[in-house]
Amino acid sequence: MELFKEVSSGIRPLDQEKMKAARARVDNLTKPVGSLGRLEDIAVQLSGITGEMFSQVDRKTLIVMAADNGVYDEGVAAYPQEVTGIIARCMIQGIAGVSVFARLWGVNLNVIDVGIKGEEELKGVENRKIMHGTGNMVKGPAMSREQAVKAIETGIQAVFEAVEGGSGIIATGEVGIGNTTTSSAVLSVLENVSPREVTGRGAGLDDMGLEQKIRTIEKAIEINEPDREDVVDVLSKVGGLDIAGMVGIYLGAAYKRVPVVIDGFISSVAALAACRLNPLAHGYMFPSHRSAEKAGDLVMERLGFKPYLDMQMRLGEGSGAIIAMQIIEAAARMMQDMKTFDEIGIARQSG
Amino acid sequence: MELFKEVSSGIRPLDQEKMKAARARVDNLTKPVGSLGRLEDIAVQLSGITGEMFSQVDRKTLIVMAADNGVYDEGVAAYPQEVTGIIARCMIQGIAGVSVFARLWGVNLNVIDVGIKGEEELKGVENRKIMHGTGNMVKGPAMSREQAVKAIETGIQAVFEAVEGGSGIIATGEVGIGNTTTSSAVLSVLENVSPREVTGRGAGLDDMGLEQKIRTIEKAIEINEPDREDVVDVLSKVGGLDIAGMVGIYLGAAYKRVPVVIDGFISSVAALAACRLNPLAHGYMFPSHRSAEKAGDLVMERLGFKPYLDMQMRLGEGSGAIIAMQIIEAAARMMQDMKTFDEIGIARQSG
Repeated sequence: MELFKEVSSGIRPLDQEKMKAARARVDNLTKPVGSLGRLEDIAVQLSGITGEMFSQVDRKTLIVMAADNGVYDEGVAAYPQEVTGIIARCMIQGIAGVSVFARLWGVNLNVIDVGIKGEEELKGVENRKIMHGTGNMVKGPAMSREQAVKAIETGIQAVFEAVEGGSGIIATGEVGIGNTTTSSAVLSVLENVSPREVTGRGAGLDDMGLEQKIRTIEKAIEINEPDREDVVDVLSKVGGLDIAGMVGIYLGAAYKRVPVVIDGFISSVAALAACRLNPLAHGYMFPSHRSAEKAGDLVMERLGFKPYLDMQMRLGEGSGAIIAMQIIEAAARMMQDMKTFDEIGIARQSG
Repeated sequence: MELFKEVSSGIRPLDQEKMKAARARVDNLTKPVGSLGRLEDIAVQLSGITGEMFSQVDRKTLIVMAADNGVYDEGVAAYPQEVTGIIARCMIQGIAGVSVFARLWGVNLNVIDVGIKGEEELKGVENRKIMHGTGNMVKGPAMSREQAVKAIETGIQAVFEAVEGGSGIIATGEVGIGNTTTSSAVLSVLENVSPREVTGRGAGLDDMGLEQKIRTIEKAIEINEPDREDVVDVLSKVGGLDIAGMVGIYLGAAYKRVPVVIDGFISSVAALAACRLNPLAHGYMFPSHRSAEKAGDLVMERLGFKPYLDMQMRLGEGSGAIIAMQIIEAAARMMQDMKTFDEIGIARQSG
């Protein structure tokens, strides 16, 4: 609890002075002003985050939060619950989507078990199990308040370790059968939008499955009465350990002044929750892709982000965030390796 | 002329059988069907292009066509004409935008001088100069029909050399003060849309400059009377050597069955021209980013492409295409390094 309080209240604003200096350099690089568009904005934001003109983001870590959800029992998922563990194992073996991309781009992949169901020890997966899957939220809270805080602190600690290990940028990812259900529930409560409006087909539900999912979320909210002004209450009652863990990643990254990349729908909902806990966390975040999950656009809108990529992806795992990491690294390189007109000895001319 | 004819008429359709086989594999990889969205479509298209299940795109070349435009004299550009050569030199020195990204991602950068004005030999830039800048198109054709064909063939040959050197994917780029003017002129004629509708601010024109640019394009079209059914006629009369060179890149890549990535506005107009010469070229192309230049969206629409990236970029040089190259490489890796449910010994279950 101490760590959570310290970190969530200890986030500072972006460094405005450094951002001004960064913008001045960007505007003087040998290209028309503004012609590298959002790459320029990224570079300026990076300076605001790190307090440096040249931000070091070449060492990159993707943290994946893996957990099971008790609400699975309500028949809300297109895949069997064992798939959570199977995919976590595939990640370690390097054959899951995101691990293929991590290898391609030299991104350190840290898969954390915050609550996969079952006793099996998954080799290579970091065991930080808080429970063996959450409780079924239509029958009571998914977890206790203490467990939610513990999940958040697990995310914070994972960032601290990554940063100590030299990482200059963090991306978020998750795997957990049933976690679009919990994400839609959290979003519905936090934004006060009906479950029907924010619930989609997840990994591939049919019409009947979708109706069942909506009813399940409605019931879970009705039974648990989460207090939308109390984010931890919402996360514990109708959320998941993976979502809470990612909230911790965002808070920890902001606290450590390290850029952090949002992935898809589930990751965006966690970002929204983190911003509610401390609005200053927003400045440390970067969007990545436009999720194909139904309420993906709505969360991005509420967060005030416009994704860089439109790939019609809805895999999760951090698969969109890891692509955006490359774009952010390119922005940092632009800042460092391009030269200003002054530096190459030519007067800026334009008309 | 022989090479141009052989290549533009020798492009074959995509391999439909291989695409079917590729789709079957993609659908069986350990992820929900369709969840990697457009990455999946890219992988399937790659198989149609190369005729292989696993396309080798790890060796990558960006070909930049550099040339000057006589229409510069009409005051249509925001930067002085010398900037073409300066930026070409910056590319070789590794400090231009696109060369920074090429170094980051291990992309071979080939800068070709198809017609920079002046006698200066630019060290490291491949000298394939066809003329010392085109003629001023408001006073007559920018170049002769023969010169346009020679520029196209220069692009074709550059691709042939890159492929012989082992490259499995090509991206297009350009630098040339005045080339949004020529691109808008070519687009206006090919698509039969008024110059006003397709002319933007390029590298940063003000309102007066923009009006002058529109009038210039109108005048050039009026004087030259290009035949919109004859693409080479259009390119030679109101186009540029860089555009023609890129047309050759598209045709050459399609002929050699190698994927080729479109960059921004100028590069898109060249892609459109290549598709007019042979509609089969379309299957070998990939979009990249949404250009911030005025008619960028219109060309993409006419080409039937939806860009992957929205970065508000308008630099050219291949700076958007080189980012998309990473995405295409990721799709190829997905195909090769992810496993099917069968391969990991698990029955696909869903529903």
